[in-house]
Amino acid sequence: MSDSKPTLSYAIIGAGALGGLYGGMLARRGADVHFLIHSGIDIIRRDGWDVQSKWGDFHLPGEALNLHAAAESLPPCDVTIVGIKTTQNHLLPELLTPPTRDGGLVLCLQNGLHSEADSAAVVGGDRVLGGCCFLCSNKVGPGRIRHLDYGRIVMGEFTSANRPPAGVTPRLKRVADDLLAAGIDVVATGDLWQARWRKLMWNIPFNGLSVALDASTEELIHDPAASGLAESIMREVHQAAAACGRTLPADAIRETLDHTRQMVPYDSSMRLDYLAGRPMELAAIFAAPLAAAAAAGAAMPRVEMLHQELAFLQQRAVRVDRPPT
Amino acid sequence: MSDSKPTLSYAIIGAGALGGLYGGMLARRGADVHFLIHSGIDIIRRDGWDVQSKWGDFHLPGEALNLHAAAESLPPCDVTIVGIKTTQNHLLPELLTPPTRDGGLVLCLQNGLHSEADSAAVVGGDRVLGGCCFLCSNKVGPGRIRHLDYGRIVMGEFTSANRPPAGVTPRLKRVADDLLAAGIDVVATGDLWQARWRKLMWNIPFNGLSVALDASTEELIHDPAASGLAESIMREVHQAAAACGRTLPADAIRETLDHTRQMVPYDSSMRLDYLAGRPMELAAIFAAPLAAAAAAGAAMPRVEMLHQELAFLQQRAVRVDRPPT
Repeated sequence: MSDSKPTLSYAIIGAGALGGLYGGMLARRGADVHFLIHSGIDIIRRDGWDVQSKWGDFHLPGEALNLHAAAESLPPCDVTIVGIKTTQNHLLPELLTPPTRDGGLVLCLQNGLHSEADSAAVVGGDRVLGGCCFLCSNKVGPGRIRHLDYGRIVMGEFTSANRPPAGVTPRLKRVADDLLAAGIDVVATGDLWQARWRKLMWNIPFNGLSVALDASTEELIHDPAASGLAESIMREVHQAAAACGRTLPADAIRETLDHTRQMVPYDSSMRLDYLAGRPMELAAIFAAPLAAAAAAGAAMPRVEMLHQELAFLQQRAVRVDRPPT
Repeated sequence: MSDSKPTLSYAIIGAGALGGLYGGMLARRGADVHFLIHSGIDIIRRDGWDVQSKWGDFHLPGEALNLHAAAESLPPCDVTIVGIKTTQNHLLPELLTPPTRDGGLVLCLQNGLHSEADSAAVVGGDRVLGGCCFLCSNKVGPGRIRHLDYGRIVMGEFTSANRPPAGVTPRLKRVADDLLAAGIDVVATGDLWQARWRKLMWNIPFNGLSVALDASTEELIHDPAASGLAESIMREVHQAAAACGRTLPADAIRETLDHTRQMVPYDSSMRLDYLAGRPMELAAIFAAPLAAAAAAGAAMPRVEMLHQELAFLQQRAVRVDRPPT
């Protein structure tokens, strides 16, 4: 960890497993952090912010936190971190406008491909950074975060699909250094699309199969048939990325399998969403990459099949939840 | 129904949903039928054979039935109908030898591709007929059969993979006519492989998805994502059949979807097996067609994926069933 301290101000939109960890780390190191709290704000005021992290446990007392029950009360911030699920992106106009009104940047840490586009539609594409979080973390209660494994953010400038990579800009480096000063594992990349495809190599097979087969990543990776399938799916994503102009390292498939094998037993975010009856991030994690691949002439039959299986399961969950009439 | 009566003698190996229906119909019309009964023989002796069928309900008293508790007591028969699951084919040497010892034929009514090969290994390939049953039927108790829908047998001479179709031989026609005389819907085909691929167009998607997605065929066919996926899987099977030299009609896909839409709500045999903790017919319905397609240079990525998903579920079921040590 560097000796410097974060100097930027932050709004955290979505203080869950992800925003709750990173926002908490920034606050712990003295950054001016404003949390938008959707539920349990009184509990957090009383009990504070509790993080159990492989990077070190810490606790922040409630009175030291800037907690906001509604976006209207958020002050203008240098950086607004978007940590809500992409399935909630219809709320972004309401949530992003107050903290970005003085021209601050948005750092979109959501899953999927091109997920920054919804933030860009609110604040303008020239004010958006994106980041891929390679993170195993769960929110277990109001202000209670359990960071289990990994945690790196690979962040870059947002560009639209057919633009060349933006490179590492001074403002990107400044935000990355600020997060680094809070003890967060951050890498600045000149090509956000490449990073997004790289992360999809894990998200697509393991989020998807964990729901389709009702299994933990640990069960999947240690079963020959399921891990063979995960590898075939990764190969499709690898090839689609290349067709989209983002050639990933040749050993990315083996590396992803190795990382998953070494990962602590972990329920993917999509499985947690499904089991809790929440909508899954199918548009961001499946439909968007499938559309990008199709536009580039690349077929991903297994990814398409997994998307169809998940769409069926999602629809059935909706049907089951609907009260009889 | 024709006015003639069946004249051949039959051994029924596997008197379940399938053998129990067809064997019962033959016995009803006076054929010399010998049932090998795996369990519940005393109940059947007492209560008889009870068939509720869309072709007409009937009941045969126990004293009129030739019931055998073991294969050794089966007499030589003209035709031995194999109706056990392919997962039990390791028992065929023991089960087939007594009824076929005078040179009778075997009619293999099992699922999958090339499933007759195991019977052929016992009695010789020149004594084997095969048949595809397009049948919705369940065994609901000892000697109690519920025939819900369809029921046609498409039967032909067994040939090994790289041989030309055998055509409709006189002996094939004789057996088919005999079954027809019992009121069974039978079509003799000159090309059994073509019929097997045609049936796989239904079995692969609907047996497979009903287990992978834990759904009835009715749920699958009425969901846009699941029926779209079933159609894509059918297209792969259609193309693989063509690569293997068996060009199926162009409208076979649409026809199969239409039939499934009109089908009574029905749990596929594979789903019933899975839910009951029995092994699924993955080798016959998935591995054999995948191997044949691969040998012909045809890829079936979705079929392969479904096979991997089912293999995972099967393995997990075995793990769960294993008592703790």
